[in-house]
Amino acid sequence: MNRLEKGIFSRLTPSQVLVIGFALTILTGAILLSLPISTESGKPLPFIDALFTSTSAVCVTGLVVVDTATTYSTFGEVVIMFLIQTGGLGFMTYATFFALLVGKKIGMRERLILREAFNQVDMSGVVRLVLMVLIITLVIEGLGFILLSIRFVPEWGWGKGLYYALFHSVSAFNNAGFDLFGDYQKFSNLIRYVGDPMVNLTISGLIILGGIGFIVILELVQFRKTKRLSLHTKLVLTMTSILIVAGMILILATEWTNPATLGKLSFGDRLLASYFQSVSPRTAGFNTLNLAEMYPATLFFIILLMFVGASPSSTGGGIKTTTLATILLAVWGMIRGRDNVVAYRRRIPYNQVYKALTITVAALTLVIMVTMFLTITERADILTAMFETVSAFGTVGLSIGLTPELSVAGKILIILTMFAGRLGPLTIAVALARRLQEPDPPIRFPEERPLIG
Amino acid sequence: MNRLEKGIFSRLTPSQVLVIGFALTILTGAILLSLPISTESGKPLPFIDALFTSTSAVCVTGLVVVDTATTYSTFGEVVIMFLIQTGGLGFMTYATFFALLVGKKIGMRERLILREAFNQVDMSGVVRLVLMVLIITLVIEGLGFILLSIRFVPEWGWGKGLYYALFHSVSAFNNAGFDLFGDYQKFSNLIRYVGDPMVNLTISGLIILGGIGFIVILELVQFRKTKRLSLHTKLVLTMTSILIVAGMILILATEWTNPATLGKLSFGDRLLASYFQSVSPRTAGFNTLNLAEMYPATLFFIILLMFVGASPSSTGGGIKTTTLATILLAVWGMIRGRDNVVAYRRRIPYNQVYKALTITVAALTLVIMVTMFLTITERADILTAMFETVSAFGTVGLSIGLTPELSVAGKILIILTMFAGRLGPLTIAVALARRLQEPDPPIRFPEERPLIG
Ligand SMILES: [K+]
Ligand SMILES: [K+]
Repeated sequence: MNRLEKGIFSRLTPSQVLVIGFALTILTGAILLSLPISTESGKPLPFIDALFTSTSAVCVTGLVVVDTATTYSTFGEVVIMFLIQTGGLGFMTYATFFALLVGKKIGMRERLILREAFNQVDMSGVVRLVLMVLIITLVIEGLGFILLSIRFVPEWGWGKGLYYALFHSVSAFNNAGFDLFGDYQKFSNLIRYVGDPMVNLTISGLIILGGIGFIVILELVQFRKTKRLSLHTKLVLTMTSILIVAGMILILATEWTNPATLGKLSFGDRLLASYFQSVSPRTAGFNTLNLAEMYPATLFFIILLMFVGASPSSTGGGIKTTTLATILLAVWGMIRGRDNVVAYRRRIPYNQVYKALTITVAALTLVIMVTMFLTITERADILTAMFETVSAFGTVGLSIGLTPELSVAGKILIILTMFAGRLGPLTIAVALARRLQEPDPPIRFPEERPLIG
Repeated sequence: MNRLEKGIFSRLTPSQVLVIGFALTILTGAILLSLPISTESGKPLPFIDALFTSTSAVCVTGLVVVDTATTYSTFGEVVIMFLIQTGGLGFMTYATFFALLVGKKIGMRERLILREAFNQVDMSGVVRLVLMVLIITLVIEGLGFILLSIRFVPEWGWGKGLYYALFHSVSAFNNAGFDLFGDYQKFSNLIRYVGDPMVNLTISGLIILGGIGFIVILELVQFRKTKRLSLHTKLVLTMTSILIVAGMILILATEWTNPATLGKLSFGDRLLASYFQSVSPRTAGFNTLNLAEMYPATLFFIILLMFVGASPSSTGGGIKTTTLATILLAVWGMIRGRDNVVAYRRRIPYNQVYKALTITVAALTLVIMVTMFLTITERADILTAMFETVSAFGTVGLSIGLTPELSVAGKILIILTMFAGRLGPLTIAVALARRLQEPDPPIRFPEERPLIG
C-alpha cells in the first residue's frame, strides 16, 4: 500500500486503527467524566453513566442517561464538547481519507476535483486533508457561534450566552444533539425555542451542513471553479432535499391537531417546528417538540428517518442517503425493466448495489436484534424499544423516554449499539472495498434461477 | 405468444386475468355470504363483513371480523370452504403455469423434470397441469382428512367429526387458517388442541406441504426417477427447515416462563406448541397459543416470520423463502468478497437478486404505509397495527385482537392489503419477467460510484 500505512499502521488495518482510536477516546472521556470535578454536585458519577455519556459524545449520538446541564459541572460540559469535536472530526477525517485513498473506486470526477488537495498519498497529504477538514469545520462552527450568540447573549448575558452559542454550535455541526437547556427543564432540549426562527434555522443549517459530508461540502466550495458535481454529490443533495420535505409534510399531516405537539402552535410555528423535526432525526437529535407526546404513526416515521440518517463522510450516522438512493434506484430500474442502475446519466455498478444491500440488511438485523433484547431487559413495548435502538444505531440521540430509565444491561446494550452504529457501516464498507479488489475464484458455476416472489 | 393466449386472453395479460378472476370470485363469495341463508341467525350480514370474509377466504388469509362457527350457518361454512379451495387451487395453478410458461427463465433442470407433463404449450397442456395440481391436492387433503377424522370423530361424533376433519384439512393445506372451533370459545382457533400430537402434526404437515409449493412437491414426487433436485427446490427446503427450527427455538426461549402461553404446559407440550407456532405464521394462521398474551419480542419475531411467508407456486403468501434466501446469499457473498451470488454450486444471476430486492422493498413499503394508516384510523399501537397488517399482507391470518374490532375504514384497508398481498408479489414478478425479456436501451452510460455506508 502507501508509505503512511507501511509506517505507522504497519500491523493494523485502517478499520482496526479507527475502532481502537475511538475506543481509547471513549475510555479517556469516561475516566474524565467520572471524576468528582466533572459533576455539579461534586460526587463522582457511576462509571457506567460516565461511560454512556462519553460513548454518546464521541459517537456524536446525544442519547443521555443523566441530564447534561444539571448533572455535569462546566468542566464536565467542556469535556463533553471536546469529546464531540474529537469524535466528529476524527470520523469525518477518517471517512474522507478512506473515501479518497482506500476506496480507490470513487468516481473519476470526484478524484479530479480533489486531486489538487491530495495529489500525494503520503504524510503531507494526510496533514493537508486534516487541516482542510479542520478549517471548514471551524469556519462553519464559527458562523453558527456568531448567529447563535446574537440570540443567546441578550437572553443569558455575555458569559453564559457565548458559552451556550459555542456549545450548541459544536453540538449541532457535529450532529451530536447534546444540549445545556436542562436548567430550564430537565431533558427539555430545544423545546423552549420551538417558535424561534433564528435558533431553528441556524441549528438546522449546521445540522444539514454537518450531515451532507465533507466531500460534498468541498465539491460545493469548488463548484465555481470546476462547474461540475459528481454523481455522489447529486445523489446526496437530491435525497437530503426529498427526505427533509417529505418528513416535514408527513409530520405536519399527522401531528396537525395533536394538542401536545403542533396543535397548540400558530401556523408559522407549525411549519417551523415540523421542518426542524424533519431535519433533526437525520441524525442530529435535537427536538423542539415533545416526542413522547407524538402519535405512534409519527414516531414510526421518525424511526425510518433516523434509520436512513445522514450522508457518507459526514458527522452523521444511519445507513446513509446514498445507500437508500442506490437501493431505490435499483428497484426503480427493475420496475422499468432495465438491467442497469442509472442515475443522472451515470451507471452505478452492480457491486455498489450489493454493498448498499449488505449495509442495509446488516443494519436491519442489528436493529431488530437489539430491539428484541431491549423489550426483554427493559420490559418496554416495541415502539419505545425500537425508537431508542434506531436512535442509538443512527447516532441520532432522540428519545421518547426510555434511555434515562435504562437498566445496567440496557445501558450496556445501547453503548454497544452506539459504537456499532458509528463505526459499523463504514468499517463494513472498508472491508468490502478491500475484498472487492480481490478477483473472484477461477471456478465459474453454471447459472440457475430460483423462482422469486 | 402461444395459442392459448392468442385465443382466450388475447386482449388481457396473464396478470390481468389473475387479478380479474380473483376479484370476481371474491365478489361472488361476498354476495353468497351476505344472504340470510349463510348466517346462523338468519339475519343477513353487513356486506362489508361478507366481503371481508370472502376476501380472506379466496386470498387464503384467515383473518376474520366475525367468528366463523358462531356467525355462519353450515351453508355459509361450506361456501367459505369452496372459496378457500378455489383461491388456493387457482393461485397455485396460475403460479405454476406462470413459472413454467411465462417465466421461461426457470432453471434448466426443472424444465427437464417437468417437460414430461407439460411438453406442449397448448390447451391440453394447461388442462393437464390443472389436473395434476388437482390430483396432488386431493391426495394430500384426503390424507389429512383421514388423519384428522381419527381424532375428531371420537370427539364430535360421525357427522360433525367428518365435517370438521374435511374443513380443517382443506383450510390447512391451502394455508387458509379458517377454523370452526368458535363454538367452544369465540375466536379460539386450535387452542384446545395445544397438546394433541395427532392434530398438531397432521395440520402442521398439511401447512408445510401446502407452503413449499407445487413445483417442489412435483420434484420430490419424481425424485426416485430423476435423482436430482433443482436449485429452487434445494433453497426452498433449506430455508423452510431453517425458519421452522429457528422459530421454534426463539419462541421456546422467549415464552418459556410466560404463564399465559408456554409457562403452564408440560415439557413435551412446550416443544409441540412452539413447533406449531413456528410453522403456522408462514403462512397458515392457525394458533394453539393465545397470541395476544405473548411477549412483545415474540410477537415481533412472529411478524418477521409472517413477512417471509411460504415458497413460490404455493398456497402461501409473504415475500417467499427463495426471496429471503437470495438476498441473504447476496449479502453473504458480498461479505466474503465475491461478485457472484452462489448457492449449491450454482450462480444466481444479478437480475434475480434485483427481483428479490424489488419485491422485498415493495412489500416493506406497503406494510409500513398500511401500518401507519391503521395506527391513525384505529388508534392502535404500532405493534398491534403491524401484526395485523403483516398478517394480511402475508395471507397469514393470525391476529392479536385488532381485526374483529376494525372500523369500516380499517376493514377496507385490510381487504385491500389481503388482495395486494396475495396477488402483488406474483404480478410484480410476472411484470418483471416480461420486462426482462426486453433488451436494455442501446445507450450505455459511463460508470460512476457513489460512496456507500
Ligand atoms: K446525534
Ligand atoms: K393463511
